Amino acid sequence: MRKIGIIGLGHVGAALAYTLVIKGITDELVLIDKTDRIAYAEKLDLENAQIGLQTHTQITIQDYCQLRDAAIVIIASAEKTPTSRSEIAIKQQQNQQMLAKLAPQIMASGFYGILLNMTDPCDVMSTELQRLTNLPQQQVFGIGTLLDSMCMQRTIAETLFVSPQNVQGYMLGEHADQQFTAWSTINVNTQPIANVLGRCKLDYQALETTIQQRAEQIITGKGYINYSVATAIILVIQAIFSDAHLLLPLSSWDPLHQVYISQPTLIGRPGVLRIIDVALTANEQQAFEQAASSIQHKLMAEKATALP
Amino acid sequence: MRKIGIIGLGHVGAALAYTLVIKGITDELVLIDKTDRIAYAEKLDLENAQIGLQTHTQITIQDYCQLRDAAIVIIASAEKTPTSRSEIAIKQQQNQQMLAKLAPQIMASGFYGILLNMTDPCDVMSTELQRLTNLPQQQVFGIGTLLDSMCMQRTIAETLFVSPQNVQGYMLGEHADQQFTAWSTINVNTQPIANVLGRCKLDYQALETTIQQRAEQIITGKGYINYSVATAIILVIQAIFSDAHLLLPLSSWDPLHQVYISQPTLIGRPGVLRIIDVALTANEQQAFEQAASSIQHKLMAEKATALP
Amino acid sequence: MRKIGIIGLGHVGAALAYTLVIKGITDELVLIDKTDRIAYAEKLDLENAQIGLQTHTQITIQDYCQLRDAAIVIIASAEKTPTSRSEIAIKQQQNQQMLAKLAPQIMASGFYGILLNMTDPCDVMSTELQRLTNLPQQQVFGIGTLLDSMCMQRTIAETLFVSPQNVQGYMLGEHADQQFTAWSTINVNTQPIANVLGRCKLDYQALETTIQQRAEQIITGKGYINYSVATAIILVIQAIFSDAHLLLPLSSWDPLHQVYISQPTLIGRPGVLRIIDVALTANEQQAFEQAASSIQHKLMAEKATALP
Amino acid sequence: MRKIGIIGLGHVGAALAYTLVIKGITDELVLIDKTDRIAYAEKLDLENAQIGLQTHTQITIQDYCQLRDAAIVIIASAEKTPTSRSEIAIKQQQNQQMLAKLAPQIMASGFYGILLNMTDPCDVMSTELQRLTNLPQQQVFGIGTLLDSMCMQRTIAETLFVSPQNVQGYMLGEHADQQFTAWSTINVNTQPIANVLGRCKLDYQALETTIQQRAEQIITGKGYINYSVATAIILVIQAIFSDAHLLLPLSSWDPLHQVYISQPTLIGRPGVLRIIDVALTANEQQAFEQAASSIQHKLMAEKATALP
Repeated sequence: MRKIGIIGLGHVGAALAYTLVIKGITDELVLIDKTDRIAYAEKLDLENAQIGLQTHTQITIQDYCQLRDAAIVIIASAEKTPTSRSEIAIKQQQNQQMLAKLAPQIMASGFYGILLNMTDPCDVMSTELQRLTNLPQQQVFGIGTLLDSMCMQRTIAETLFVSPQNVQGYMLGEHADQQFTAWSTINVNTQPIANVLGRCKLDYQALETTIQQRAEQIITGKGYINYSVATAIILVIQAIFSDAHLLLPLSSWDPLHQVYISQPTLIGRPGVLRIIDVALTANEQQAFEQAASSIQHKLMAEKATALP
Repeated sequence: MRKIGIIGLGHVGAALAYTLVIKGITDELVLIDKTDRIAYAEKLDLENAQIGLQTHTQITIQDYCQLRDAAIVIIASAEKTPTSRSEIAIKQQQNQQMLAKLAPQIMASGFYGILLNMTDPCDVMSTELQRLTNLPQQQVFGIGTLLDSMCMQRTIAETLFVSPQNVQGYMLGEHADQQFTAWSTINVNTQPIANVLGRCKLDYQALETTIQQRAEQIITGKGYINYSVATAIILVIQAIFSDAHLLLPLSSWDPLHQVYISQPTLIGRPGVLRIIDVALTANEQQAFEQAASSIQHKLMAEKATALP
Repeated sequence: MRKIGIIGLGHVGAALAYTLVIKGITDELVLIDKTDRIAYAEKLDLENAQIGLQTHTQITIQDYCQLRDAAIVIIASAEKTPTSRSEIAIKQQQNQQMLAKLAPQIMASGFYGILLNMTDPCDVMSTELQRLTNLPQQQVFGIGTLLDSMCMQRTIAETLFVSPQNVQGYMLGEHADQQFTAWSTINVNTQPIANVLGRCKLDYQALETTIQQRAEQIITGKGYINYSVATAIILVIQAIFSDAHLLLPLSSWDPLHQVYISQPTLIGRPGVLRIIDVALTANEQQAFEQAASSIQHKLMAEKATALP
Repeated sequence: MRKIGIIGLGHVGAALAYTLVIKGITDELVLIDKTDRIAYAEKLDLENAQIGLQTHTQITIQDYCQLRDAAIVIIASAEKTPTSRSEIAIKQQQNQQMLAKLAPQIMASGFYGILLNMTDPCDVMSTELQRLTNLPQQQVFGIGTLLDSMCMQRTIAETLFVSPQNVQGYMLGEHADQQFTAWSTINVNTQPIANVLGRCKLDYQALETTIQQRAEQIITGKGYINYSVATAIILVIQAIFSDAHLLLPLSSWDPLHQVYISQPTLIGRPGVLRIIDVALTANEQQAFEQAASSIQHKLMAEKATALP
């Protein structure tokens, strides 16, 4: 039996719930939202949606107790959908307060599964969430730069007229703010991208800009990103259930910098199995350090604000 | 090769596009919306969402010419999402004008596939759409009371503690306004519902109210219904592609009343194969006649308004 | 986490394992066969088959201990694939001996899940299996006439040029030997089949013969039936995992006749939820009684043989 | 509308047909086998298997004319399933004669789609098939070393305790006989395998042996490989339908050596889009040359035999 909880039924949470239902991935689904009538409406809509499917998902709502035996709980709450990447930073404090309210309620249920954080700023909030819940670090992580990496893969694939499945590699660092393309990890058609770009006379800077713009155009156009986020989370969920030992760029605990940061993370049933060293170049390592500093600063700012 | 067009990327159109993409149902998808940046953002989001899937859907946007060789085009446009069922009627005129603008553009592409209408009031607008496009009547139909029937199946299933797959039967008539539960068509566990309810001492009226409330609670709670609509359309699309000869309550042409009306419609690759006589009772037949009158009146009101 | 065991990797067991793997239905799969190298080869083939899938199934082999925490174990063993329906009866004794060897090994693991029997004669062997394991009757059942009912639905659908999804109803009684078409339960397009056939001037006898021939032609042609059996089992498995309360014609415990017999059985997570009374006609009830007698006789014959 | 033909319903052809049906990938399926009753039995079994699915596949059998508008035809015929890799070579002549009989019948239908060859020796038979049909070279190719590459990915993944999805790279050359692991193309966790193995003190030779044994153990154990072959073909079929520009190690036309040989081949809707240069090392290039020679020799041997 598989059981998943989703906290927050905005654009992302709802799209995720829908995907879980129509793919028959989970047997039980617990939906929690700050607005009762929305949780109830989503439940009804998702139940109606199951007519004609061969699978059936039991949906319960607004009951933290139901999370007790959930294998995975996804935190998809946010004070409101950010309409620009800069707003993300501003909302940090509000989101922190929200997590401070949610975390004890989750833990009070007796929950001891995997906590997957979607709330931005993702690396900061994942760090907070682990502190607030005191769950083992391997059981708490954030979606981090997985979405950005998917965006990068697609952009490079389109530029080179190949399938995104022919592109491997990662965006790393701090999701949204201090993320960087780890070019040394990127392979196209099994070849290092440096070799491929050399032949095409493309430059990294132009590609980097295109990747960045792609994400911004979705937010500008729709006001939010939901469908690719939902499928990104599905990837992670499937890797957990099937103990896949899958390497994904996720926001996981970095003992050196004592923060959560987006890094190549091997995922299996227990959650984080280990961090994989992908031999970053000196430049990339520096970008990673900067990202770590940025996350640390935000965490300190938060603590300062929270003090009195 | 399968090709599908969606016109209108509101909550329903977008959820439908997402479902087609993650289930790998169509090879090409044409998205058209009145707002360019929304169509573009959906395209980018849906493309990113495909990383990790085994299927890949080609997405083009804002180009009616692309509809030329589409097998199916879904009209999911509406002036705005109605927040109450009563608003549906008010928006009729606006939606009619919108269809009058869309239809010639679709037909100018050379399109000769199946047109599936989602725009409300569904039966009225399906009638309009067939007039406007002059496509064969079997190639034009509306989602009609399929969604309502799914809602009915779920409600009865919950009341009787069985799977909705154990419940067959239809809501018929005029979607939203003059629809009725065709109780004589409803079987539970292969038995006529009359026999089953007799044993449980449930009455039709209470069930009817619960069915009606269920739909209203989704709209009240979320502001719209999208996920169950998307899966309903998927049922129809699959039935068309695979020539399934599947019986569904859809808004199809009724030569007797000269309107589109929600009735048991057999669907295959050419679209509507035929209408199935499900032996309605005299009362049900009367409700059907009333629905036909209601649709006729709305169509006449429209014509009167449109005259000068 | 979902875990399933399959005992016996003949045509049915292997096709079932493959289906579970490519649909990502189970997280862990335990395969057991009397021949080690076959179990090992299937494991390797099924593991290779997962490249490119988004799901990953952990496969272990030849270890009864692994069944301890399986939710469902499917018994797909048979001394050899029968090449004719008549052979099924002859093999009864061999199969009984095989079950007598398997059952203690399953139970020694500490298994306390659901046991789904495929071994023929299905109703007799399901009765045996419950006795041998002493598991609660609701946790043991056989595939019974589900496969025959699917064959009936397809035959009627083809005859009437509609989708099999438009046909409901059941074959009941004793799988293979004394099964009968419960015509009173069969609806086509929501209407009793009597009404439909009346209009088409088809007779029951001809249809019955066609249904019977259809199953025989598969066995004669291929030497076995596997793919439709695999999808039938998948239906049952999905109903269990998602607690679907789905009504299926399965071989379940009949307290009146003190045997397992194929009857309309409501399936949920605990296994058999209850038997549904589908109001058989007097003739059908008589056929049901005959089937019960036939099963009882076979069980007694077995006991007599087994005595000394 | 998607239409696929399969010629040859042995273990591979049947498993492929089943996969296409249960995944709803094709709308029409044409099955052809040398034995009528087997084709008919598979059709009936696959039709029964569709009860409960949301998709429906039209199946026709034994009619070459039906291939006229098929998008893809898979040649899965072989005189008999080889029980050892060495037998593959012996059967070359028989298979060549079989293709010589099939090809004109396929082409007489007016077929002008993509021909995907599974018959061994794959590279030799793909070369033959293109000659016999005179279809454009880009529309004919063989499964080549795709299956071997999947086997390699799985073996390396298991050795290093990661998901096969973390392993990219190819086996190339002549499928079965002169294939080689192109180590320079293999990345694990985005890093060249040389770096990874260096740290683990594993050697190529041991890994190569394990890969080879894995394939052999399947054949020795089951007598054939079918499920991983079926999913490999599905990967190719999906890449064609969705024009995915996916890079796969397939047996495609090499203008330099004037033979079909397994090489990194970019697949899209027209079939082969182009061959990708993956910068083989001198040693690998030499192994590739040897493979090309081996294929050339077999082709010449065949011609010599065929002469009088």
